[in-house]
Amino acid sequence: MIYTEDKICQIKKPLKLKSGEVLESYNLTYETHGVLSKNSNNAVLVCHALNASHHIAGIRKTTKDLGWWDNMIGPGKPIDTDSFFVIGVNNIGSCFGSTGPASINPKTGKPYGSDFPLLTVEDWVNSQAVFADFLGIKKFVAIIGGSLGGMQVLQWSISFPDRLENAIIIASTARLTAQNIAFNEIARRAIITDKSFHGGDYYSENTFPNIGLSIARMLAHITYLSQDGMTEKFGRNLQEKKDYSFSYEIDFQIESYLRYQGEKFSHKFDANSYLLITRVLDYFDPAGEANGDLVKALKVVKAKFLLISFTSDWRFSPSHSKELVSALLENNVQVSYSEIKSEYGHDSFLLEDPGYHELIRVFFSNML
Amino acid sequence: MIYTEDKICQIKKPLKLKSGEVLESYNLTYETHGVLSKNSNNAVLVCHALNASHHIAGIRKTTKDLGWWDNMIGPGKPIDTDSFFVIGVNNIGSCFGSTGPASINPKTGKPYGSDFPLLTVEDWVNSQAVFADFLGIKKFVAIIGGSLGGMQVLQWSISFPDRLENAIIIASTARLTAQNIAFNEIARRAIITDKSFHGGDYYSENTFPNIGLSIARMLAHITYLSQDGMTEKFGRNLQEKKDYSFSYEIDFQIESYLRYQGEKFSHKFDANSYLLITRVLDYFDPAGEANGDLVKALKVVKAKFLLISFTSDWRFSPSHSKELVSALLENNVQVSYSEIKSEYGHDSFLLEDPGYHELIRVFFSNML
Repeated sequence: MIYTEDKICQIKKPLKLKSGEVLESYNLTYETHGVLSKNSNNAVLVCHALNASHHIAGIRKTTKDLGWWDNMIGPGKPIDTDSFFVIGVNNIGSCFGSTGPASINPKTGKPYGSDFPLLTVEDWVNSQAVFADFLGIKKFVAIIGGSLGGMQVLQWSISFPDRLENAIIIASTARLTAQNIAFNEIARRAIITDKSFHGGDYYSENTFPNIGLSIARMLAHITYLSQDGMTEKFGRNLQEKKDYSFSYEIDFQIESYLRYQGEKFSHKFDANSYLLITRVLDYFDPAGEANGDLVKALKVVKAKFLLISFTSDWRFSPSHSKELVSALLENNVQVSYSEIKSEYGHDSFLLEDPGYHELIRVFFSNML
Repeated sequence: MIYTEDKICQIKKPLKLKSGEVLESYNLTYETHGVLSKNSNNAVLVCHALNASHHIAGIRKTTKDLGWWDNMIGPGKPIDTDSFFVIGVNNIGSCFGSTGPASINPKTGKPYGSDFPLLTVEDWVNSQAVFADFLGIKKFVAIIGGSLGGMQVLQWSISFPDRLENAIIIASTARLTAQNIAFNEIARRAIITDKSFHGGDYYSENTFPNIGLSIARMLAHITYLSQDGMTEKFGRNLQEKKDYSFSYEIDFQIESYLRYQGEKFSHKFDANSYLLITRVLDYFDPAGEANGDLVKALKVVKAKFLLISFTSDWRFSPSHSKELVSALLENNVQVSYSEIKSEYGHDSFLLEDPGYHELIRVFFSNML
């Protein structure tokens, strides 16, 4: 069993943000697997999605938590840490060790709360580039990520085309649809209207908008699963009862499951981080930077690409990936694309599908 | 222009509910169009969906509100009130005149609130049958409804097979999926956890859980529209601004639209009614009454059926209608089915699609 521990990179160089604001200094919490080669040419950066962290694989010594992509990353696994030096880094604005809204604002000595600046995928990628400098990595052999992680990969290929050889984008998109934004907006309303939110400065009130965050998470969870997958797993099964309660208590297993997921999440995630990261998602739109022309936005990219989507993913359906593939091909970029048959919806990218894992394994083997 | 007015039917006969509780007396508010024939053989009952009411067509004298299905019902319209006597009735438990949670409980002299009993589609249909007796209608020439309205039509055909000749079920289902229930559960959590909910007895507190109800409505609204329809209508368009605000204020048109819809709805609908009706939806499952066997559940039906679904409806997708059509056909019931191409999602049943309206027109003409 691989044990991992948090490492911290303290960055004193101010980060100029897309909003115009500046983050004077910040910490990035990270985790590494494998050994960096002498010429630093085997480094893989793993970008995480909304709820995840730098803890990508192995087990935390303290909490015994398994990394969120442990089925993918490790010795002999598709991203083989016997060959690659694999890095997970917690994004700023998140809540797993890197500087975020719950961190102490050095200017006030209190948690940032509502003073924490809004970020973008570009800002994240810029901070990750500073982090790569800190590690002495000029160029990643690959940057990989699913969902929001995939957006970071895409942004890397645009912002720093010379700093990655391979870009692997899974279950992701070049921009959110109106429906995607709509779900995010409802999640934010649930959090912001929670009576314990206090305009984002709940830390000093010794309270937490866990009801709103729980609702936000329940909602997101529906978009991670497929309609058929939910039917298969829960159907109309009742939760430990034989008949309806004729009340608003839990009757169906799906109600119990969602409430549990919401409740659990609301105790491990920061509500301000949730707000911030949904906005990062909304704002990502490289085509928007090029007058809506995705082909033009991708003109600068140099990496080789692997894109993967999943048939039952309705959050970022295969059409999102296909649009990106087309735009890359129009730029004569080398792209492989695979649409994996799966009934597990958006969550498929986290699961251990043999065909999917084999695809990643082969793509990485070819880098050696 | 047709002006309409509310009529009230006071029912003193106790209604035994599926839950075991009894509603001792209740009012049904209704509206009629056209003239009942001498032998009462031209009566059409229109069953309404979650948000709607008995106000099906024409204009309210007082409020100038147009009926929700005015494009379908009226002189010369697909359901032609020159030939048919068309009745809309507000369901009990709702909030547009019929007895519901906001009504005065005769036992206490105060609004029912949390004391209002939970209902089912069967209960509604039973109350509508008492109402039909009151009107002197032994048999409807047709009962029609979309979405939750369609569930009532189906239940009529099971509960009172001799009291309707034609059953028209549009954009509906024989039972909710786990995903459908999941959305309802989140809507209920938003309402119940609103600090102004007071366990359902907010009337006496002079407050109203409009924040929770607004969130519930925003969420439901997403399920009424199709992904493509939302992209077509809103895309990533910004709301009266040229750049992101870098805040949680409204940036995108879709955010503005949803907030407006939620806000508007929260001022015209009762939160307890919303809770109750989502539970009515969850509980509907005629197959469940027959050990999960839909074919068996439909053994008693005698009506001729028309079922209609819409291609982009992902709330109750065409597969729901097809399952019902198959089960009806296995019982040798006469069924017509049409899947209408539409990009407007679940809402399509309310819109004026020429092919859809023509289908209804022809089906009704054949009854004459």
